[in-house]
Formats: sequence, structure tokens, C-alpha cells
Amino acid sequence: MIDLRPVIFIVGLLLSTLGCAMLLPAIVDLAFGNEDWIAFAGAAATTLFAGMGMSLATRTDDARLTTRSAFLLTTIAWIALAAFAALPFLWTDPGFNYTDAFFESMSGLTTTGATIVLGLDFRPPGLLLWRALLQWLGGIGIIVMAIAVLPMLQVGGMQLFRMESSDTSEKILPRAAQIAGSISLIYVGLTAICMLGYYVAGMRLFDALTHAMTTIATGGFSTHDASFAFFDSTSIEMLSVLFMILGSLPFVLYLRAMRGNAGALYKDTQVRWFSITLVVFIIILGLFAWGNPEVDPERGWRHVIFNVVSIMTGTGYASTGYDNWGPFAIAFFFMIAFVGGCAGSTSCGIKIFRFQVIFTNITQHANRIIYPNGVFVNRYNGNVLPDHVSASVMGFMFLFFLVFGLLSAGLSLTGLDTLAALSSAASAIANVGPGLGELVGPASNFKNIPDSAKWIMSIGMLLGRLELFTVLVLFNPHFWRS
Amino acid sequence: MIDLRPVIFIVGLLLSTLGCAMLLPAIVDLAFGNEDWIAFAGAAATTLFAGMGMSLATRTDDARLTTRSAFLLTTIAWIALAAFAALPFLWTDPGFNYTDAFFESMSGLTTTGATIVLGLDFRPPGLLLWRALLQWLGGIGIIVMAIAVLPMLQVGGMQLFRMESSDTSEKILPRAAQIAGSISLIYVGLTAICMLGYYVAGMRLFDALTHAMTTIATGGFSTHDASFAFFDSTSIEMLSVLFMILGSLPFVLYLRAMRGNAGALYKDTQVRWFSITLVVFIIILGLFAWGNPEVDPERGWRHVIFNVVSIMTGTGYASTGYDNWGPFAIAFFFMIAFVGGCAGSTSCGIKIFRFQVIFTNITQHANRIIYPNGVFVNRYNGNVLPDHVSASVMGFMFLFFLVFGLLSAGLSLTGLDTLAALSSAASAIANVGPGLGELVGPASNFKNIPDSAKWIMSIGMLLGRLELFTVLVLFNPHFWRS
Repeated sequence: MIDLRPVIFIVGLLLSTLGCAMLLPAIVDLAFGNEDWIAFAGAAATTLFAGMGMSLATRTDDARLTTRSAFLLTTIAWIALAAFAALPFLWTDPGFNYTDAFFESMSGLTTTGATIVLGLDFRPPGLLLWRALLQWLGGIGIIVMAIAVLPMLQVGGMQLFRMESSDTSEKILPRAAQIAGSISLIYVGLTAICMLGYYVAGMRLFDALTHAMTTIATGGFSTHDASFAFFDSTSIEMLSVLFMILGSLPFVLYLRAMRGNAGALYKDTQVRWFSITLVVFIIILGLFAWGNPEVDPERGWRHVIFNVVSIMTGTGYASTGYDNWGPFAIAFFFMIAFVGGCAGSTSCGIKIFRFQVIFTNITQHANRIIYPNGVFVNRYNGNVLPDHVSASVMGFMFLFFLVFGLLSAGLSLTGLDTLAALSSAASAIANVGPGLGELVGPASNFKNIPDSAKWIMSIGMLLGRLELFTVLVLFNPHFWRS
Repeated sequence: MIDLRPVIFIVGLLLSTLGCAMLLPAIVDLAFGNEDWIAFAGAAATTLFAGMGMSLATRTDDARLTTRSAFLLTTIAWIALAAFAALPFLWTDPGFNYTDAFFESMSGLTTTGATIVLGLDFRPPGLLLWRALLQWLGGIGIIVMAIAVLPMLQVGGMQLFRMESSDTSEKILPRAAQIAGSISLIYVGLTAICMLGYYVAGMRLFDALTHAMTTIATGGFSTHDASFAFFDSTSIEMLSVLFMILGSLPFVLYLRAMRGNAGALYKDTQVRWFSITLVVFIIILGLFAWGNPEVDPERGWRHVIFNVVSIMTGTGYASTGYDNWGPFAIAFFFMIAFVGGCAGSTSCGIKIFRFQVIFTNITQHANRIIYPNGVFVNRYNGNVLPDHVSASVMGFMFLFFLVFGLLSAGLSLTGLDTLAALSSAASAIANVGPGLGELVGPASNFKNIPDSAKWIMSIGMLLGRLELFTVLVLFNPHFWRS
């Protein structure tokens, strides 16, 4: 049997942290004289009570976190955090049922950015801050997880990012704590710089804070229904582009750069490919938009750059109704949503390194076809790429599209039209945010889809964020055998 | 340098065969007193002249067909055959330009079944026979290629189907000739039985012949605009289901069964998976259609079985406007189109064995995650599955979806709406036939899409039929180095 005590202990600690975080919107709403502070305080008390109770009940000295309990921990933690983070939504908005609240909090924690809240511009600051905080906490959570936990779990090729060959399960906690410390400092620093930039560029202080949080987390929640179109400012949009990109690069490289290895960022093959891909996508869509009457010619390139970066990094801000640019643009945005950023960043999707691994394998296959007796060694970032890592990556890709297909089929069954079903499934699994089309497009909102569709999307967001295998391995009967 | 003489020699022989085949519709049209016989006779003369000229000019005694020339041969042969097979379309229909004619002949030879011909019911028999003949010849061509050529070329995992480890390029021609002989007999036999069945079930003799040809080839060309809805007969549809399935199984197994190994078909893992998948798909869609008012309740299961088999095997007949069954059915048909039949059959798509290989690899990955030090050996049909074959298969899958994405984007750029672009791209690469939606759905026709879209689809059909790598390897610079 798997020892559940350390799992519950850590989930308890995480919930307690979440409970403390709920006090921030409570204080803000209290300061602004808004009644919602009671809901936040109540949710904080509930969450703290549950979290501390779990931790106290399972405190033990001889607990070891095995690989299997790490899998359980990851999945349970994410679900439990979303379940409690939903309480403030449930208790502040009479129009929300628990499905809506869970959808919103899962969308926040997974940095997806799909929203159910209508009329953001008229909402009290506590709720808006809570949405931003969820994405911000989810963002740092996912970075720490991608650096410290996933490589050890060998999920979908993430073993490429093991720091040392001696990584063992016993070291997870101390390592996670140590990395979380340094990376969190960088994360806070980047958020502060971004906020300052937004403020100087003309945002109100509150907007600057909340948007800085959701930008660096590549989350996409805004405090305005019109998203970035509300500000209509070139400098704000270009700042956002910069920090969405910074949020999509591997955060360990910032650590290395701070420690004197300034070339680390420049030399990393994943960063290079990500940059090139982004530029190519911008050029393609830019050339298309150039002659397109739907795109304002004055602002064509500005909108192209902003929205390509926003969708490819999985942020999900919109500076204009880009889904009105015609079928090519729709197909284009649909596809780049799958790409995502780098491993070890806040962005989601398939991620650049997986495309690199697959490209390497296709090249090798094409060469082997021509020289059947030749020996070709695959490499990644200068190191030999073992076949079993390639197999993991390709298994991941296949599972990704399989899950995408099942999510689309499920969403269709709930009555969504084809474009809405396909784009919502893609948006959930790649943690992007908006779908495409009238019902769920960037100008719309997920409030109007059926409850069953909201649960399907919540599952999709969780699976996408946890790299599929982390969750699905729990359904393997072998997992539960001793 | 690659010795082009044997390539041109064989292409010449194939063209000469095609030229002879053109005499059949010429004779039929002459017998029915239709003027089109002149166009067919002219096309036959042109094709025979070109083919025999090519063969005579390159006849040599010391020619060897190397692996590289086999790649060139496969691609060039398919393009050349389509280019000449287009002539009768161009010369009999004043509404056809060469783009239309090439599209129709490529759609025929690749057994796709997407058509540009309007008003099939009022067309002279020569033209209708020519369309059926093209699919029938394409069908046997692809079987022989899949058995004799592709395994040696090691394309996309087809090396799994090598007959002996001693296969070398020198043996291609005699082996191809030997296999082509036995398999062709079986192919002719199955076609004859199918024709007899259709005739007994109530088709006119001409319809029975042409539909038997396009059924066993899983092609999908009909002699009526309404496709199988024209006959509206349960027995005809169930006969068609049987022979579409027979066309989707590996033809070598029929050879083994004829030679006394009757269990070969039953024991083959690919046949088992194909059957199970088909049944599961029918049940899923059947349960969906059960409560759906768009589906005639009297005929629900009949239409479900017929159209699922038709789309999954890549045939493309329609017994009803199944794209009016709502968004779930559309998404469902869209996805099963990718699946396809077995390797070594006339059907196209990704093919069952690739899903098996990937499933095996995902299971292995999931087990390795749980037991990082365990040793797991992948197997296929009882034999060890080498890692490089898995890599080939997964490389193929990825390239398949990449090409699908590029085709969709290209089709969108020509102005097709999103559903039409996505479904036409899927239909082309998986050699299915009809797309989805008003413009290109089963009730419609590809006549109305722009010329550029027709060329993009022709490229897609060719790539899909030749398992992508066979064509794309020609663009690898290594291919052309000595």
C-alpha cells in the first residue's frame, strides 16, 4: 500500500498557504468597504482549518515520499487547491454554482485563463485580485513542479531536465524547497518590474499589479471584459509581449544567468527554437493580415505580434477580435495554441522541446531510410538523446491528441458547435484561455456553456497542466500494486 | 547519380498498361453509341505512345533498381499515371480544365473518391467506367506496393511487414511480379463475387460492376450523385459493408488462407484490433443516433453501420446526409476518418497497426514510470518490436498531423471555411472522399472549390497514399548525394 500520510501532510501545508493567500483579497475588500471581505475571510478560515487539520493529523517523523506518492501528491494537491480556491467565487457571486466556481479556480490555478465571470469592469477589487493571485500562485507552482518533481517522475520526456543523475525521490522535498526559494525570488522580481512597467505606461496601480501577476504566469485573466483592448496602448501591449515571453522561458536559466552564466539563456537550444518559431509565426500571420480588410492596417503588426505571442504562450489576452480575421487566421490560432513555450516555464501546451525531439527523430528516420545501415545518434542540447526519452515524448504527443479528441467529442456531446468544441478542448488542454467563434471566442465568455462542458474543460485543464501522464498513470492498475 | 533508366522504363510499362485500360471505356462508349469513345481512344493512343516510347528509350540489360530509385519510381509513377489518366476527363467534359481532370484522376488512383463530376446519373457509361477502373487499378497497385515495395523502403514502420529478413532491392521486381500475380487473382475474384452480390441484390449490371470495383478498392466513386442512397436497399448496403471490410484487411492473409492456413485471418492481431475498433465505433455512434431526431429511427442502425464502415475504411460512400446529425456526429466522423484499415489493404489513413505500436509504447512508458528500473520488451504480433520501428511509426504519426495542419492552413488560405478546410485536408490525406459541411460534404462536390485548393488536395492525396515519407524523402538533400 502507498503511505498516504506524507501526501496528505503536504496537501495540508499547501492548503494552509492558500488559506493565508485568501486573506489578501479579504483585506483589500475590507479597505475598499466592500462586503465581499466576509466571504473571503470565511473561505480563508475554512481552508486554513482543513489544511492545518490535515497536516496535524498526518504529522510523522518516519514518512518517506516515494515516486508513487509523488504522483498521487501532484494530482491530489492540484484538485484540492482548486476545490478550496473555488469557495470565494461561490460565496461572493450569487450567479455562481459550485461548477462555475470550480471551473474559474481551476482555470486560474492552471494558468489557463478561461473565465465565467461577466462584467469584470464592475467587480469589486477583492475578486479581481483573487483571480490574479490564483494564476500567479499557479504559475510559480508549475515552475517548481516542472523543475523538481516532473523530471524525477519521468513524465513525457521531462526526464531530459533532470539536474543530476543522482536525483532520487528522497531528495524531492529539500530540492523543491531550495529551488522554490531562488526561483520564487526571480519570479517576484520579474512581477515587480512588469508591474512598474505597466504603471509607468499608464495603467492604474491595481490594474498594473493584477496584470503583472497574470502576465508573468502566462495566465490571461484580466480585470476588464475587453482584456488588453481596454487599454489600447502600444507601449502596454509591447511590455506585455516582453513579459509573456519571459514567462515562457525556462526559469532555471534566469537562475544560471544571475549566477554569472549570462550566455545560458542565449545558448539554450529550446530558447533558440522558441524564439525562431515565434518570429516565423508572427511573419506568417503578419503577411496574411497585411492584405486583409478585417485587420486595421494601421495596427496590423501590433495586433499580430500581441495575439500570436498571447496564444502561443498560452496566455490568452486579446487586443482585438482576432477570430474575425477569417478562416485562415482561425485555423492558424487554433494550431499555434498547441505549441506552447519552454519546459520549466509557466506556459503550457505541447512545449518546444517535444517538437525538437520529434524533429530529431524524423530526421533520423529520413536518414535511416536512405542509409539503412548507417548509425545515427540523436542529440538534444549537445547530449545524447536516449531512445526511451524519444519514445516518452512521442507517447506524450499521441496521448495529447487522443485526449484532445476525447475532450472535443465530450464537449460536442454537451451540445457545443464543432468550432466551439474543438477550440474549447484545445484551449483547456493547452491552458490557453479563450476558444474560437461566437460562443466561446475572445469576445465572449464560458458562462454560457452547459455545466457538463465546464467539468469536461476542468478535467482537460488539469490533464494539460500536469502533462497528462502524471494524472493518467493513476489509472494504471500496476500503480496500485505493491 | 541515381540511374534513372530503370525508373523511366517501369513508369513506361505502367503507362502502357494504363493506355490499354483506356480502351475499355472507349469500347463501351462505342458500343453505346456515345461520342466520348473518340476522347478515350485518343487518350489511349497518347498514353500508349508516351509509355512505350519511355520504355523503349530506356531498355537496357544491366539496369539495377536500387533503394533510391525505388523511392523515385514510386512517386514518379503515381504522378505520371495521374497526369495521363486525367486526359479522358479533360477531353470528354467541356466544363473540366486540367486542374479538375488531374484532381479527379488523382482522387481515383489513390482510391480517395473525392469527385468534381456533377450529374453522375446522366453521364455516359465510358466516363463512369473509367472512374471505377482508376480506383480499381489504384487499389491493386497500392496492395502490391504495400507488400513488395514499402517494407523494403522502411517507410513509417512498414518494415514490420517484411516477408523475409533477406529482402533486398534486387529482389523487388521478381517478388512484386510473383505477389502481384497471386494477389491480383484474389482481387479479381473478390470483385467478381461482390459484383454478383450487388446484381442479385438488385443493382443494374453496370452499376454492380462499377460499384464492385470501387467497393473492394475502398475507393468510393459512385455512378449516382446520391451515392448508395440512390439504391436505398438494406441488402445492397450490407453487401457493401462486407466488401469494404474485406478491402481493408491485409490481402496477404487471404493468400495464406487460400494456401490452407485458414486461421491466419482470425489470428492476426491487426485484423482483431480493426474488427474491435469498428464494432466499438458503431456502438458509440449507434447509441448517440438512437436518441437523435435527425436520424431516422427505423433506419438508425443501418445508416450508422454503413457510414461508419464507409468513413473508417476510407471508402467514402454515403447512404444519407450523416453530416446533418449534429456536432457530435461531425466530430466523430472527422476523427474516425484518420483511423483507416490494415496495412497491406486498399484502405488508407493512419492504419490500425500504427495505433497498436503506439499503444504498446504508451503502455511501456506508463509501466516504466512506475518501475523505473524494470525491463519492458515491446511486442507486435508476437515478435519483438524494435525501438527504431516504434520511432518510425511515431515519426509517421507526427508528420501525418503536421502535413494535415499544413494542408488545412493552405486550404483555408484559398478561402474555404474552417470546417471545409479541416475536413477536406483530412479527407485528402486519409484518402476518404467527402468532406464535411455544406460546401464539400457528402451531399456536395469538390467542383466549387478554387483551383489552388484542388491542387493542394491532390498533393495531400498523393502524400497520404504513399505514406508521406516515400515522397518527402526526395526533399532530403542526403537523398541526392552519391
